[in-house]
Amino acid sequence: MLISVINPNTTVSMTDQIAAAARSVAAPGTEIVGVTPTMGPASIESHYDEALAVPGLLDAIIRSERGDKPADGYLLACFGDPGLDAAREVSSAPVIGIAEAAMHAASLLGRGFSVVTTLGRTIGRAEELVDRYGMSKVCRGIHACEIPVLELESNPDTAAILIEACRSAAEEDGSDAIVLGCAGMADLAQLISEKIGVPVIDGVAAGTLLLQSLVTMRVRPNATGELASPPAKTYTGILSPFGS
Amino acid sequence: MLISVINPNTTVSMTDQIAAAARSVAAPGTEIVGVTPTMGPASIESHYDEALAVPGLLDAIIRSERGDKPADGYLLACFGDPGLDAAREVSSAPVIGIAEAAMHAASLLGRGFSVVTTLGRTIGRAEELVDRYGMSKVCRGIHACEIPVLELESNPDTAAILIEACRSAAEEDGSDAIVLGCAGMADLAQLISEKIGVPVIDGVAAGTLLLQSLVTMRVRPNATGELASPPAKTYTGILSPFGS
Amino acid sequence: MLISVINPNTTVSMTDQIAAAARSVAAPGTEIVGVTPTMGPASIESHYDEALAVPGLLDAIIRSERGDKPADGYLLACFGDPGLDAAREVSSAPVIGIAEAAMHAASLLGRGFSVVTTLGRTIGRAEELVDRYGMSKVCRGIHACEIPVLELESNPDTAAILIEACRSAAEEDGSDAIVLGCAGMADLAQLISEKIGVPVIDGVAAGTLLLQSLVTMRVRPNATGELASPPAKTYTGILSPFGS
Amino acid sequence: MLISVINPNTTVSMTDQIAAAARSVAAPGTEIVGVTPTMGPASIESHYDEALAVPGLLDAIIRSERGDKPADGYLLACFGDPGLDAAREVSSAPVIGIAEAAMHAASLLGRGFSVVTTLGRTIGRAEELVDRYGMSKVCRGIHACEIPVLELESNPDTAAILIEACRSAAEEDGSDAIVLGCAGMADLAQLISEKIGVPVIDGVAAGTLLLQSLVTMRVRPNATGELASPPAKTYTGILSPFGS
Amino acid sequence: MLISVINPNTTVSMTDQIAAAARSVAAPGTEIVGVTPTMGPASIESHYDEALAVPGLLDAIIRSERGDKPADGYLLACFGDPGLDAAREVSSAPVIGIAEAAMHAASLLGRGFSVVTTLGRTIGRAEELVDRYGMSKVCRGIHACEIPVLELESNPDTAAILIEACRSAAEEDGSDAIVLGCAGMADLAQLISEKIGVPVIDGVAAGTLLLQSLVTMRVRPNATGELASPPAKTYTGILSPFGS
Amino acid sequence: MLISVINPNTTVSMTDQIAAAARSVAAPGTEIVGVTPTMGPASIESHYDEALAVPGLLDAIIRSERGDKPADGYLLACFGDPGLDAAREVSSAPVIGIAEAAMHAASLLGRGFSVVTTLGRTIGRAEELVDRYGMSKVCRGIHACEIPVLELESNPDTAAILIEACRSAAEEDGSDAIVLGCAGMADLAQLISEKIGVPVIDGVAAGTLLLQSLVTMRVRPNATGELASPPAKTYTGILSPFGS
Repeated sequence: MLISVINPNTTVSMTDQIAAAARSVAAPGTEIVGVTPTMGPASIESHYDEALAVPGLLDAIIRSERGDKPADGYLLACFGDPGLDAAREVSSAPVIGIAEAAMHAASLLGRGFSVVTTLGRTIGRAEELVDRYGMSKVCRGIHACEIPVLELESNPDTAAILIEACRSAAEEDGSDAIVLGCAGMADLAQLISEKIGVPVIDGVAAGTLLLQSLVTMRVRPNATGELASPPAKTYTGILSPFGS
Repeated sequence: MLISVINPNTTVSMTDQIAAAARSVAAPGTEIVGVTPTMGPASIESHYDEALAVPGLLDAIIRSERGDKPADGYLLACFGDPGLDAAREVSSAPVIGIAEAAMHAASLLGRGFSVVTTLGRTIGRAEELVDRYGMSKVCRGIHACEIPVLELESNPDTAAILIEACRSAAEEDGSDAIVLGCAGMADLAQLISEKIGVPVIDGVAAGTLLLQSLVTMRVRPNATGELASPPAKTYTGILSPFGS
Repeated sequence: MLISVINPNTTVSMTDQIAAAARSVAAPGTEIVGVTPTMGPASIESHYDEALAVPGLLDAIIRSERGDKPADGYLLACFGDPGLDAAREVSSAPVIGIAEAAMHAASLLGRGFSVVTTLGRTIGRAEELVDRYGMSKVCRGIHACEIPVLELESNPDTAAILIEACRSAAEEDGSDAIVLGCAGMADLAQLISEKIGVPVIDGVAAGTLLLQSLVTMRVRPNATGELASPPAKTYTGILSPFGS
Repeated sequence: MLISVINPNTTVSMTDQIAAAARSVAAPGTEIVGVTPTMGPASIESHYDEALAVPGLLDAIIRSERGDKPADGYLLACFGDPGLDAAREVSSAPVIGIAEAAMHAASLLGRGFSVVTTLGRTIGRAEELVDRYGMSKVCRGIHACEIPVLELESNPDTAAILIEACRSAAEEDGSDAIVLGCAGMADLAQLISEKIGVPVIDGVAAGTLLLQSLVTMRVRPNATGELASPPAKTYTGILSPFGS
Repeated sequence: MLISVINPNTTVSMTDQIAAAARSVAAPGTEIVGVTPTMGPASIESHYDEALAVPGLLDAIIRSERGDKPADGYLLACFGDPGLDAAREVSSAPVIGIAEAAMHAASLLGRGFSVVTTLGRTIGRAEELVDRYGMSKVCRGIHACEIPVLELESNPDTAAILIEACRSAAEEDGSDAIVLGCAGMADLAQLISEKIGVPVIDGVAAGTLLLQSLVTMRVRPNATGELASPPAKTYTGILSPFGS
Repeated sequence: MLISVINPNTTVSMTDQIAAAARSVAAPGTEIVGVTPTMGPASIESHYDEALAVPGLLDAIIRSERGDKPADGYLLACFGDPGLDAAREVSSAPVIGIAEAAMHAASLLGRGFSVVTTLGRTIGRAEELVDRYGMSKVCRGIHACEIPVLELESNPDTAAILIEACRSAAEEDGSDAIVLGCAGMADLAQLISEKIGVPVIDGVAAGTLLLQSLVTMRVRPNATGELASPPAKTYTGILSPFGS
């Protein structure tokens, strides 16, 4: 089984870190490939960044689909789940976003969870996803730690700040679990959980395992309807394999 | 007052038609400019098309913003309201989508409205927008006429098919108004309304007038928070004015 | 185009102020007439006041409808939107309430707005309207400044108190816009917005512009169904033009 | 214990019928007085009728409150629950509407109920009440029998038509109970229930018993907040005991 | 009329207290019998306790149903409304839970109520019931006084603690009524209400009166569908009258 | 890793079938043990059956927890997810229900799914779970095939009937996936999916894989709050390890 973990931003070191997090939970027979798109922003911290990231990640999926060994599943490793619907159209295999994965997993652990994300300006998008995934009752709060995505790795205080943010979110919201709101926090989930005594869900691990589960069940998405392949047409200023 | 009506697809004849529909309702002092992005699909009929259209429409807004005479408002003239949040980040003036505009206008006319759109595969996106705009109670049904976007103009039966689709939607749903689900239907709103005796809302007209209203009220969007300008960073494979 | 702005209370100086606010945003060809009903309370600060105001405002609309020059649209200029459904029954032209208008306009400006109203006892009614208009997600808070309606004009501290109330509402709720909860605050919207740096929506201006927009689109409400003319019957103790 | 059953329309024979329905379920120590307002429409079949009925019913409550023997509870015997909030402001005793009463009672009988009302044009108001009372999940359908209110008594086919309408509503919706949507149907509840084998709730009986229950529990509504007495002020064209 | 008030726990003194509360509001012709199941926990303070209480309370209902004088209605006197659906299946008479009864009664008194319950760990279950009964808008808060169920009677500070908890809940939430979250608080409702000036609803009284109301209306639950008698089958390790 | 798959009914052949379905998807290192409670109904087709099944399944979990080799996760293999909250209280490891698992998995495959269950009388419970798990928007219909649980295995037409029911559900609802509404249908998921061309989710497989995923992530549920161990007390008529 081959799972493609797509980092929607173009920072290769982050791709490596994300792929490692995926590999650390994958079953023996599951191969993980980390993919960095050839086009897009260095990190995703705005709706604009997300919009510019989507063509690159779709291109990465289409290349895999049309390549020698298409992946059996695709994980979109950015907490905004950018381009999820479009990715499902261009893929014949299951596609999951890490926000989606983390929220579904966290909802299995009790009455409510809290999200701890990077910048406050991303909370609006997280709220939208909470609604979309039916998590309005179970998500009790979304909190920002105000560390930019690319500083998560370099800032020496990241772990301490996140531990404190997760602890206070769990207490304030009375939550049974914490969801980490950025793929760049993947390697800290276990540590934070040990420190605060509340389960902490990282979407990269959750998404890898959910995809592996869908593939194991031999689920192939519906090839007709809303998520069928895009109709062929002319595309200007960009190359598209769906061009007529 | 200058209002920029952006056709998110690259079909120039459709831009012209949309701009004409906007001009037909604009007040004397309001100048309408129709804009066709330099990059994107010929029409938008899938999530993939929408994703590929967004960078082009954002580019069009940024050029206006940084040009000699920035627009006082931007209308996104595709019923999926593609890239609306990102467009608000890069614009200092109000931005409205035509689905948003049409639904809000239709909700002022009674207890419920129906949407009549192009292809059935776009209904999922329309449902999402209905939720986002708080229209779950007031939107009583979304119906497809199954005419592709670019055939709306060329198909000699378009008017007849739409009149029938709108009539049956209004009857089946008991609706007080019809919302047209594609900018390419703008020129038919008046005719359909006369034929079926129920008000028919075209989002291009509604959006032009709502934008004109916001500008008249001298409303400038909040420049801080979620919709502030994107933070500067490196962009790969694309030129971005927000690059550092 | 003739727009009738109906002040549902009987205080003529307030009618004048409201009509002036409407005129200040109306297009050159739009005539505004301010109407004071012949019957009702001096101000509306309770459900009881609202109930006693409705027959008078309906009477004003019916007189216009049956007069020489019926209005092309009616604005109900009280934030409780009193008698809105009944007004739509007796009018052949569009009718909008200022709460409805202000909330729809504010929702176009971002992820959420806050309402700042007069007395705390009116919050329940505002909550009801938030639900009715589908604004539950986008309305983030309703706050009272505790200045009675008729004191808004005479109290020398009104502007200062409202500026402070709007500023703290925007901060506390993280809102992208403020909605003013009383027609008597119409003349302060611009000032407050300048002071707090957040757009402030007055329903009188918003309603006037939305009505003007509907009329420009030549929308006539559905004459059948729930909002058709009332059936004829006997009315006791009151004269009604719908009496048989 | 004295319960005032207010028929919001001015048809005295209907008041008598409603009071009889209330008396038929009241406990031995409970006195029922049927009240016909001095002002209002002969029946309520539109929002306009409802608006014109409210001042008369509020006047009836205020007279009782200021009389020698104020009632211990007031029942508003029209399925639109007209003026409910205002009635609570002017009363120091509990006030219930028959739609409210019937829906709450029916919700105690299983997973879902259906409403069978008079004219189709009243369905919109019933939908609003379903939302207001939290019955969106439990109310599975609202159906009209298209018999006008005042014909319910005179039409020889009323019973047959209603039995059929209730039977098909219960089957179509899979409902565990039927709610009758008009006070004028009160005397048929038992008969319909026997014919269709599904419990049928009449709001006059339900409301009388719920009021009697609240009074027995010695519940007095909160005298402060939203539903406190209206503030004193000037009323024009009408006499109001709350005038200053 | 015979109403069976079932205390789902096995503490007989609590059954006596609950039956007394029911008797204090029952009409002269209504006989109240308090029932203690032969199996179950001494009090219900967890989902586990609730699960172990249900077979005993169902057994008590089935014994009544198959006895000489079946009750005309059953009240489940624990605020978790344990086994309510199953109880309705095995009973041919109406069954009500005290949470259900108290919330419906409280919702008749204004815009919102607060719940004051025993231990904080029971709040999750109360939230679930709030959703189930359509009370999401009207229930403004659920608060715990942290007194265990069986200490309510013995703790000398119970009244003082509850008065304070109810007062602060009403103030914090701006509520028009308080709902007591445990059958063991039944005898304090009147006292608390007098002290805090806000109506206080005890579910035992409310449920007794609602049941009495349903029986007076001669309502018999639907005998078909979801709540029909359980189908016969083999039961292992337990005797069941529905065994084949 | 040891996963305990608990069949909440007492039919051993069904336990064997369920355990086989779990084993067929489990990873090499995952041991599956199928458990049949010592007490309960032969199948679960009513709320009553569910209520009588819960003590037995809780007993099975507690025995595992206090045994030599506690399971690392528990799957409740009945589509009503009976006793889920109580099971979480008595377990220190994750507990999942198959309805919960199947709905979450199906929601990852597109815009909407349909449920196909056994008897129509179980639809009410399924609706409740749809609400609880936030699936109101994504679940588009619940359909019954009217085959009793224990006949699923013996009825020679089971496969044909289910294929037809799933096909028509997918078409009628426009669904992207089917959820099977009974553990006894587990072995048919693959066949049905092949026949109808739409993915079919069996909760036993989905639940096994989700549990395995949570255990792989080393998630341990929060040991405090609502789902902490039950407080010690006296239990009458039953032995409970939580008795004091």
